[in-house]
Amino acid sequence: MKIVRGVFRTQNVISAGVKEGKHGLALIKASGTSAGVFTTNALPAAPVRVTKDHLSDGYLDGIIANSGCANAMTGERGLRDAEKMCEIAAEIFGTSPNNIGVASTGVIGKYLDMELIKSQSKIVATKLGPEGMKDVARAIMTTDTKEKIVTIEMDDYRIAGIAKGAGMIAPRMATMLSFLYVDANVTRKRLEKALRDAVDDSFNMVVVDADTSTNDTVLITSTSEEREVDENFEKALKLACVELAKMIAEDGEGATAFIEVIVKGAKKSEEAKRVCRSVLSSPLVKTAVFGRDPNWGRIACAIGNAGVEIDENLLSISLSDGARTITVYEKGKPKDEVDRGIIGEKLFIIIDLGKGNEEARAWGCDMSYDYVKINAEYTT
Amino acid sequence: MKIVRGVFRTQNVISAGVKEGKHGLALIKASGTSAGVFTTNALPAAPVRVTKDHLSDGYLDGIIANSGCANAMTGERGLRDAEKMCEIAAEIFGTSPNNIGVASTGVIGKYLDMELIKSQSKIVATKLGPEGMKDVARAIMTTDTKEKIVTIEMDDYRIAGIAKGAGMIAPRMATMLSFLYVDANVTRKRLEKALRDAVDDSFNMVVVDADTSTNDTVLITSTSEEREVDENFEKALKLACVELAKMIAEDGEGATAFIEVIVKGAKKSEEAKRVCRSVLSSPLVKTAVFGRDPNWGRIACAIGNAGVEIDENLLSISLSDGARTITVYEKGKPKDEVDRGIIGEKLFIIIDLGKGNEEARAWGCDMSYDYVKINAEYTT
Repeated sequence: MKIVRGVFRTQNVISAGVKEGKHGLALIKASGTSAGVFTTNALPAAPVRVTKDHLSDGYLDGIIANSGCANAMTGERGLRDAEKMCEIAAEIFGTSPNNIGVASTGVIGKYLDMELIKSQSKIVATKLGPEGMKDVARAIMTTDTKEKIVTIEMDDYRIAGIAKGAGMIAPRMATMLSFLYVDANVTRKRLEKALRDAVDDSFNMVVVDADTSTNDTVLITSTSEEREVDENFEKALKLACVELAKMIAEDGEGATAFIEVIVKGAKKSEEAKRVCRSVLSSPLVKTAVFGRDPNWGRIACAIGNAGVEIDENLLSISLSDGARTITVYEKGKPKDEVDRGIIGEKLFIIIDLGKGNEEARAWGCDMSYDYVKINAEYTT
Repeated sequence: MKIVRGVFRTQNVISAGVKEGKHGLALIKASGTSAGVFTTNALPAAPVRVTKDHLSDGYLDGIIANSGCANAMTGERGLRDAEKMCEIAAEIFGTSPNNIGVASTGVIGKYLDMELIKSQSKIVATKLGPEGMKDVARAIMTTDTKEKIVTIEMDDYRIAGIAKGAGMIAPRMATMLSFLYVDANVTRKRLEKALRDAVDDSFNMVVVDADTSTNDTVLITSTSEEREVDENFEKALKLACVELAKMIAEDGEGATAFIEVIVKGAKKSEEAKRVCRSVLSSPLVKTAVFGRDPNWGRIACAIGNAGVEIDENLLSISLSDGARTITVYEKGKPKDEVDRGIIGEKLFIIIDLGKGNEEARAWGCDMSYDYVKINAEYTT
């Protein structure tokens, strides 16, 4: 099981994308058993609703995705536009619109520019090929600064995926878009469960801000029946999703530091996860990390806000840069002076609740002037 | 029922405070039936635990409060220090430490400097008088920029209070400290219920960031038995708390705009409150307001994240500066262009869920570069 970042390598996927300023369009042709996980926002965007519907038979022939406009809060017209996007892709791929997944990302509350989408799709159609996923990853970027691509090499098959992130990255379903492929056979039931589980421990554990987008979509397609996945498929898929999740955290809007939170000693796994998310969601923790200030009292405060019972006489908190670890609070006793140098571009926050054996990990980033700048100036 | 901001007027309260840089100390002498509401953080600070204990008989003779150190995450030593603060006040007031409430605010994870507290308390003791509450309000300030003081004048009695806010202001128990007084008789049971209800609709509806502090404390004392409160007491107390809550929102860390969210048309009051808090907690909404960008799609996204069922065909969203109101989304239809000028120093976000008759209000502020600056540089 080998992780290759920045490379998309799998069989039976052809794709292409264009990006013009804020507006991008991507097409991916890949046929097979498919599964999806979608936003938990109560106002899901039109493409989310259409893709859910098209996935009801567990099969896709491809995906069309655009950036620059989320096609959310757009009512009946938005649903018609999302269906039209599927028709455009279906015509290019020679299939039925019901076999197309559609995803959008960008500004909420605007109608799609269907003329732009049509003209972009014509360009993209001429470029379709096996090497197109880097362009796809770029086409769906909004405030992302880099493409997020990973391949997990298995003995006999590969899992490869791309993602976009950057903002509206919340504890529940923490990604905008991710498309994954495995070039081996997986039954629909196994694929759905594996994706749900992988997302739980990866995209659901990334926090950039606290906003769950209206458009979050993760799709996976098994593109080959020539071989079967092995017993490590679930593990490998989780690894692919975790890598993409980390890339999203590293490339969070305005991020200057990557934060990994590790919570041990929980009674239940869900409690460990809640503490992880609470720490990574705290603007006070995030601004302290930006200021390279080891103000661990804010971490303690966020732990206390997780909605989990905490015993301060069992709790310990450590900070680490990977090489060096400082225990800042241990079972009722605070450490007086903490070396500011412990916070660099990578910070591990290790929390031991001292109550059980469950643990969880989550990923996020600091909150900088640039986060405010990017989001104060985004629509116009 | 007359609201007087900036003035503390009630009988039977003498007080004083000092503030030296980050470190302040305040003493308030006021005897009577008392009630308190405290943080819901699972790691409550030592003074919170001590004050809860001292309030078990529903009576206080006064309060000692300090700023600069929260005395939180300080274990057994922290509890002893909080008790010592009560002993210091009790000696000055000539009562038992069990009749003293203690509150602290400031950095978490540091021990109190008891020598400083002792020396400051000696100074404060010499200054006690009926006009001291402005100094008290200043003594407990941390990153607040102004004192928060209000008096509600009733026909026959007064409710007066002070508060501090600024940061770690979260949807649950959204204040650091507030001390309130009513110079008329209220039974303990009525006082406790009235305070709990008032806090629910005021301090619990303020959002500056999303962090519930370890030290949140609201205390009220009824300081006179000469007259009884009337049937308007509950309403007046709520009004006092709402005014202080608004002052906290206006003076939120780095705030350049005050935001009032009004949610109407909810099936349940709790649902309306949840939507209010979700909108005011969203960093994306807050940064858009800082950028004076009427990007209402982010408001829609936050509404969808509230954990409440929403029907986008019944939902409407309007923005108002008080004088002019623009409906940006109405029952499935987005408005294409929105005048940026609608967002000034005061923004009302009016949300109609279109499902029932319940409503709620909440207060908050934008998120600016200064919020990041203040919190990246706070401890050192």
